Amino acid sequence: MIHSAFTMPLPYLSRAAAPLTCEVEVLNEFGDKQHMAIPAERPLTVYVDKRELVTLMTLGARPELLVLGYLHNQRLIQSAGQVESITVDWDVGAAAVKTHGGIEDLAAKTERRVVTTGCGQGSVFGGLMDEVDQLALPVNARITQRQLYSLVNTIRLEESTYKSAGSVHACAVFEIRNDTAEPQMLLFVEDVGRHNAIDTIAGWLLMEGDAMRQLVFYTTGRLTSEMVIKSAQMGVPIVVSRSGITQMGHEIAQSVGVCAIGRATNKRFVCYAHPERLLFEPGLASI
Amino acid sequence: MIHSAFTMPLPYLSRAAAPLTCEVEVLNEFGDKQHMAIPAERPLTVYVDKRELVTLMTLGARPELLVLGYLHNQRLIQSAGQVESITVDWDVGAAAVKTHGGIEDLAAKTERRVVTTGCGQGSVFGGLMDEVDQLALPVNARITQRQLYSLVNTIRLEESTYKSAGSVHACAVFEIRNDTAEPQMLLFVEDVGRHNAIDTIAGWLLMEGDAMRQLVFYTTGRLTSEMVIKSAQMGVPIVVSRSGITQMGHEIAQSVGVCAIGRATNKRFVCYAHPERLLFEPGLASI
Repeated sequence: MIHSAFTMPLPYLSRAAAPLTCEVEVLNEFGDKQHMAIPAERPLTVYVDKRELVTLMTLGARPELLVLGYLHNQRLIQSAGQVESITVDWDVGAAAVKTHGGIEDLAAKTERRVVTTGCGQGSVFGGLMDEVDQLALPVNARITQRQLYSLVNTIRLEESTYKSAGSVHACAVFEIRNDTAEPQMLLFVEDVGRHNAIDTIAGWLLMEGDAMRQLVFYTTGRLTSEMVIKSAQMGVPIVVSRSGITQMGHEIAQSVGVCAIGRATNKRFVCYAHPERLLFEPGLASI
Repeated sequence: MIHSAFTMPLPYLSRAAAPLTCEVEVLNEFGDKQHMAIPAERPLTVYVDKRELVTLMTLGARPELLVLGYLHNQRLIQSAGQVESITVDWDVGAAAVKTHGGIEDLAAKTERRVVTTGCGQGSVFGGLMDEVDQLALPVNARITQRQLYSLVNTIRLEESTYKSAGSVHACAVFEIRNDTAEPQMLLFVEDVGRHNAIDTIAGWLLMEGDAMRQLVFYTTGRLTSEMVIKSAQMGVPIVVSRSGITQMGHEIAQSVGVCAIGRATNKRFVCYAHPERLLFEPGLASI
């Protein structure tokens, strides 16, 4: 669940930009030279109140939101208001996080280490699983099959680093107002690791979030345990993936009430868990 | 570089087995029930001499080799001979590692934290990059285009969890004896995270390794910085991927002398770095 910062002002975020792709010369199978774009991958070392916390390897699209969402998804902060500023400097590959009151028990909170399945952000400082059962998701949130198709099509049309350079994962978050409204894409973000992408979305929701909105989370990556947990932590009860699901992702989706939809391309999909959140319109599948 | 254990006996490894897939009921786009297989994903908490080190999320195919390779790729051990035994018990999700003489400075070595790009094993205890320049790879190792095609075809024919359940990454290691020999696949392994897969291969090489063999590493995943570094650490100078490469993976491959081949499917591929290790036979591309 994303907690809005009702009492504290939102943090200052720098807007550090860096090229997302670069061009390299390659030889193809005919031995011919050609040029192609590849995605950037850069280290970003996060310092919290001048203490080194972690180095993230990232594409670098929205580094400040990535850091904010990372801190939240690691349960080091509860709200954006706890942070005074996040300043990213690509020249030194550093993100300086300044908090208002420090992070209590930072050492203890970062002690346990779980190397998770997902791309790009494997390390979750332990204890995530302990909290899974406490998550409460909106009971009535749902998506129609027509809205699901619209959402998948919106992703397909997105101009992306993936289209130009490949080798990145995308995540997006959509708002659904009612059964007949078109899903509105609130944020689309790519990263060399899909967990960076979901953390960036978490960061954005912390800055912009309105807990009353009904949200749907989309990822090109697999629905592993960590992806399902993070979605639930963001208060998002519906997840859609172009890829599949793991056994633990499946079990967690079932237990916390996340509607998990996978293999979603064009008109095809499968619903792995909580199909009561998906209003089937099978007639649309054969049009 | 994998160091063989010339002086110490190889460790005892349990052979803990667990189902790699399970069947779940899903609803498809027509609202029809169907059954499909999904891959397992299970936590494996690693204890080194009774001290908790890390929890890995894994498919569980070769957990003992995974743990051994993980310890090596995190630079906590140099050779298999340092380990007396690795005993995995899936009932409690634990891998008990017993070393002969303990691991010196374990706390210091695991202090720095890098969350890398790759799937499945994001966390590399820091300092990897510092060692990149010290790696020495065999100068004359190479692969012919015919051998590359043979290797890709061998992977295509492999019966795999991916074929039955999707959502896993595969890695394999091949031996190439000379320019005309068929590449021999020494090990094929899948995992929910491709870094688990490469660590499992590292573990296998530690157990079976002969530093004189000329090896080629294959992965379905992207060639990120971490994948290229780990390949070089294993002494493998040629990497082949079905996917692409990142900018940092590219830079590291160039600097350490790794021949990086990507987008390898059927007859197509691109060579990103060190094409002098690839004997082009362009005539084969159009057959």
